[in-house]
Amino acid sequence: MLPERQLQFSFTQNSDILKNRYDEYRDYMRRIADVKYAAAVLQWDQETYLPPKGASFRGQQLATLSEIAHELFVKPSFGDLLKTLVADPSLEAVQKRNVALTLEDFDKNGKYPSAFVRRMSEATSTAYHAWIAARKENDFRVFEKPLADLVALKREEAHLLGFKHHPYDALLNEFEKGATVAWLDNLFREIRPVLKNILDGIMRKPAPPADFLHQHFDKDAQWKFGLDLLKIMGFDFEAGRQDISEHPFTTNFSTLDVRVTTRIDENDFASMAWSCLHEGGHALYEQGLPEGQYGLPLGEFCSLGIHESQSRLWENCIGRGLPFISYIMPLVKRYFPQLANAEARQLFAAVNKVQPSLIRTEADELTYHFHVVIRYEIEKKLIDGSLEVKDLPGYWSALYKELLGVTVPGDRQGCLQDIHWSHGSFGYFPTYTLGSLYAAQFFAYVKKQFPDLDQQTAQGDFSALHSWLRKNIYQYGRRYTSEELCNKITGEPLNLDHFRQYITEKYSLVYQSSL
Amino acid sequence: MLPERQLQFSFTQNSDILKNRYDEYRDYMRRIADVKYAAAVLQWDQETYLPPKGASFRGQQLATLSEIAHELFVKPSFGDLLKTLVADPSLEAVQKRNVALTLEDFDKNGKYPSAFVRRMSEATSTAYHAWIAARKENDFRVFEKPLADLVALKREEAHLLGFKHHPYDALLNEFEKGATVAWLDNLFREIRPVLKNILDGIMRKPAPPADFLHQHFDKDAQWKFGLDLLKIMGFDFEAGRQDISEHPFTTNFSTLDVRVTTRIDENDFASMAWSCLHEGGHALYEQGLPEGQYGLPLGEFCSLGIHESQSRLWENCIGRGLPFISYIMPLVKRYFPQLANAEARQLFAAVNKVQPSLIRTEADELTYHFHVVIRYEIEKKLIDGSLEVKDLPGYWSALYKELLGVTVPGDRQGCLQDIHWSHGSFGYFPTYTLGSLYAAQFFAYVKKQFPDLDQQTAQGDFSALHSWLRKNIYQYGRRYTSEELCNKITGEPLNLDHFRQYITEKYSLVYQSSL
Repeated sequence: MLPERQLQFSFTQNSDILKNRYDEYRDYMRRIADVKYAAAVLQWDQETYLPPKGASFRGQQLATLSEIAHELFVKPSFGDLLKTLVADPSLEAVQKRNVALTLEDFDKNGKYPSAFVRRMSEATSTAYHAWIAARKENDFRVFEKPLADLVALKREEAHLLGFKHHPYDALLNEFEKGATVAWLDNLFREIRPVLKNILDGIMRKPAPPADFLHQHFDKDAQWKFGLDLLKIMGFDFEAGRQDISEHPFTTNFSTLDVRVTTRIDENDFASMAWSCLHEGGHALYEQGLPEGQYGLPLGEFCSLGIHESQSRLWENCIGRGLPFISYIMPLVKRYFPQLANAEARQLFAAVNKVQPSLIRTEADELTYHFHVVIRYEIEKKLIDGSLEVKDLPGYWSALYKELLGVTVPGDRQGCLQDIHWSHGSFGYFPTYTLGSLYAAQFFAYVKKQFPDLDQQTAQGDFSALHSWLRKNIYQYGRRYTSEELCNKITGEPLNLDHFRQYITEKYSLVYQSSL
Repeated sequence: MLPERQLQFSFTQNSDILKNRYDEYRDYMRRIADVKYAAAVLQWDQETYLPPKGASFRGQQLATLSEIAHELFVKPSFGDLLKTLVADPSLEAVQKRNVALTLEDFDKNGKYPSAFVRRMSEATSTAYHAWIAARKENDFRVFEKPLADLVALKREEAHLLGFKHHPYDALLNEFEKGATVAWLDNLFREIRPVLKNILDGIMRKPAPPADFLHQHFDKDAQWKFGLDLLKIMGFDFEAGRQDISEHPFTTNFSTLDVRVTTRIDENDFASMAWSCLHEGGHALYEQGLPEGQYGLPLGEFCSLGIHESQSRLWENCIGRGLPFISYIMPLVKRYFPQLANAEARQLFAAVNKVQPSLIRTEADELTYHFHVVIRYEIEKKLIDGSLEVKDLPGYWSALYKELLGVTVPGDRQGCLQDIHWSHGSFGYFPTYTLGSLYAAQFFAYVKKQFPDLDQQTAQGDFSALHSWLRKNIYQYGRRYTSEELCNKITGEPLNLDHFRQYITEKYSLVYQSSL
C-alpha cells in the first residue's frame, strides 16, 4: 500500500476564531515547536535507522526545517506581538514569564546580523568535517585552522551578544544563564583541591577488583536488562521508547514522546546499564515537564546544568549507590549467570572504581571533573586570546599530566576526543560539572526530607523521589534560572560542600576507609 | 547526552549567488519537498515506532508541516515565477515538462477556495473517526451521516475542479490522470465476463491443497525470509530498510531512502512473504526514480496505476509464478522445516488458489477485481447521485452476492472494510485494477523481449528485468501520463487481452486443465 499522504486531503488551515493576543502568541510558538520537533524526529531517525545513502538528502531536509523555524521566530510582526504582550497587565504570572523569556530569546536572535549567521554556519560545517578528518588522521593540525576561524567567530559572537566582564561570559550564558567566569573560577578553584585530596587518598589504597565486569555479556540480555532499569526508575514506555545508536542520547518530540538511545558493548557489563540510568534521568525530566506548556519556555528544561543534574542524580547518586545496587542484584544474576556469585557490595565497588584516564566520557565520577576543568581553562583562554589554537595540544597534554598524571599518546585520545568544539559549542562543558554539583545538593536535600530514602531505594520504591522531583523541578520548566531554582529548593545557592560530602562518603565506603 | 540540536548553531541561510529562474524554481520545489518528506518521516514513525501517548502532538506536528508545505506551494509569487518560466523558450525538454506539470498542480490548487479546504479538512477528520467507531460497533449507521457529508463535498470538489462528462472523472483524474467513467465503464464491462468465465471454470475443479500454509511459522524465520526476498528482488538496503507496522506500506524520503513495512502472521506462511514482494515492487520503483529530480514532478512516480503495476508485477507476475517459486524453494525449506517435503509445484498451486471471499485485501489475483468493480460502481453512483449513502450497505451486499456469490455477515466485513472513503479518497480503487492490467501488459512485453526470462527468474537473475524497468519506466518519473507511457513502451494502449492471457495461462497451470 502507498502512504496515506497520497490518500489524505492534506490541506488544513488555522481556525479563524477570534483569539486573544496571548493565544495568538501561544499558537505561533506551538507552530514553531512543531517544526523544531519535526527536525528532532529526523535527527533521531538519522542516529538510529537512517540507511547510509539517505544521509545527504536528510541533511538538506534538516537544514530546511531549521531555516523555516528560524524564519518564523525572527519575523518582525512576531516581535511586535511580543512587545505588546510584555506590557499587557492582564497576563497571569506564568503567561508573563513565557512572554518575557520569549522576548529575551527574540532580542538575542536580533543581535546576529545575517552575514554573521552565514559565516558561522559555514565555519561550523567546515570545522565539523575537519574534526572528523583530523580524528581519522590522529592529527590536530588538520583541525587547527578551521578551529582558529571558529574561535575568532565565537569571540565576535561574544561581542555581539555583549558581556560585562569576560567575553566567555556571553557564551556561557547560552548554556547556563547567569554563569560567569568569575563565578566558575571560584568554583573550580575550590573544587580542585577537594578532588585532588580524595584522589590522593584513593591512590594509596588497593583498587577494588573490577575485572569481572569485562567478561562476555549477552547482547539480548543486556538489552532487556536496560529496559528493566528504565522501568524500575519509572520511565513511561507509553510516552517514550529506547533504541540503539552509536552514541547514547535523549531527545523528545513532546513530553509525551521522549526517546532514549543506548549502545551495547558485549565485553563491558557496566557501560550500557549505567548509561541507561543516565539517559533515563534526562528522560524523566522531559517526561515530567508540563505538557500544557508545549512549545513555550515554561515547557522547556531550566538549563543544561539542571538537565545534567537529573541524569547524574539517577546515574550516580541513586544508580551507583549501594541501596540501588542491592535492589537490582537479583535481576543482574537472573540476566547474567556469570555474575551468579557476585555480591552487591562487590558490584558497588567495581562500578565506583576510581582510575585517572585519558577519555572524559569513560571517566569515573571523581576524576571526571578534572576533564571538565581542563576544557574550561582552555575555552576561557581561547576566547580571551591568552591561548592560541596552535598551542592547544601542548597545553592540553600539560594539564592532563598535571591534574590527572596521565600522558597523552596522541591527539585522538587528547584534544580531538570531544565533538563540542567542532560544533562551535564553547561554554557547554562547565554544565557537566554543574550538573554533578546540583545533583549532590538536591540529593542531600531529598535525603534530609526523606530519611528512609535509602531503604525505599533498596526496595525499588521511588515514589517519594518522583513526587519530589516533579514538584520541585520538573513542573517549573524554564520558569526559574538554575540559581533561582537551587535557592528555591534547597534554601541556598550552589554549595560545593554537598558534593564534597557526597563523594567523601561514597569513596570511604568503596575504599573501606575514611578519605 | 542531550541532542545535537542544542549543540549546533542552527541558523542556515540560502546562498545569495545569482541564480537563473529555473534554478530558483528548482530550489523552491526542493524546499517544499524537504517539508513534505519530513512529514513523511513523521508518518512513517507514527506507523512504526511512535509510543501511544505521543499520537496527539504528532498529529499536530503533521498538520503544521502540511500547512507549511501548502502555504509555500500556493504563494502568488511562485505562481508568477511558473508563468514566466512556462513561456521561457530557453528551457530544455525536461525542464519544460517539470514547469508545465508544476503549473498544472498550481492552477488546480488555486481552484480550491480556502473555506472549502477547511470544510473538507473537518469533514475528513470527522469521517475518519466515525469510520473507526462504526467498525468497532460493526454498524454502518455510525458512519452514514459523516460519509454523506463527505460525498456532498466530493461532488462539490468535482465541480470546482471541472469535468466534461461525469463528475467522477474529476476525482479519478486526481489518482490516474486521464481516466474517465466512459473509459473505465468500458474496461470493466469487458473484464467482468472474462473473470466470470475463468472463475466458473475454476469452481468446477477440485481446489489445490493449501492447508499446509496455515501451520505455525516462526516469527524470526519469517522476518529473515522477508529480508531475503527483498534482497533477491534487488531492493537496495543501503538506500532503504524494512520495519514492522500494523498495515504494510511503502514510503520514501528521497530515492535514496525508501522504507517498506510488513507484518507477520505466525499462522500464515504466504501473507508476509508475498506482501514483501508487493511492497518491494513499489520500493524498487521509488529507488529507481531519478535522484537528480528530487522534489520535481519528473522525480515523482507516473500515476497510482503505474505504481501499482510495479507492486503487482513483482508480487504476482514474478512472485506467484512457478519459476520464482522454484528458485526460492531451497530458501523456504531452510527457514521452515515444516515445509521440508513440499514441492515448488504445490506451493505454486497453494499461493494461487482461487476462492471468492468477503475481504478485498485477502482476495486472490482473480476475484480481487470483483472487489474493485463493486467499489467503482458504488463510488460512481454516489458521486453522480444515483445512489444514496443510506442505501450503500444494501447495494454492497447485493453486488457481493451477484458477483462473488458470498453473503455479507456484517458491515465490518462489508462496506466498512476499507479506509479509503473515510479519507475522502474517491477514485482511488480503480487504480488497483489498472495496476494489474498494466503489469500483465508490461510483463507480456518483457517476456517477448527476453524469451528466457523464466529461466533467468528460476535462477534468481533479474538483471535483464531490472534494466528494462529502469530504462522504460523508472527513469521517466511523471514525464508521461500512464496512457502515454503504456503506448511508448508496448506500442499500444492498455489492452485487456494481455491480462486475459496471463490469468488464463496461470490458472490453467494451477488447476491443471485449460480454462
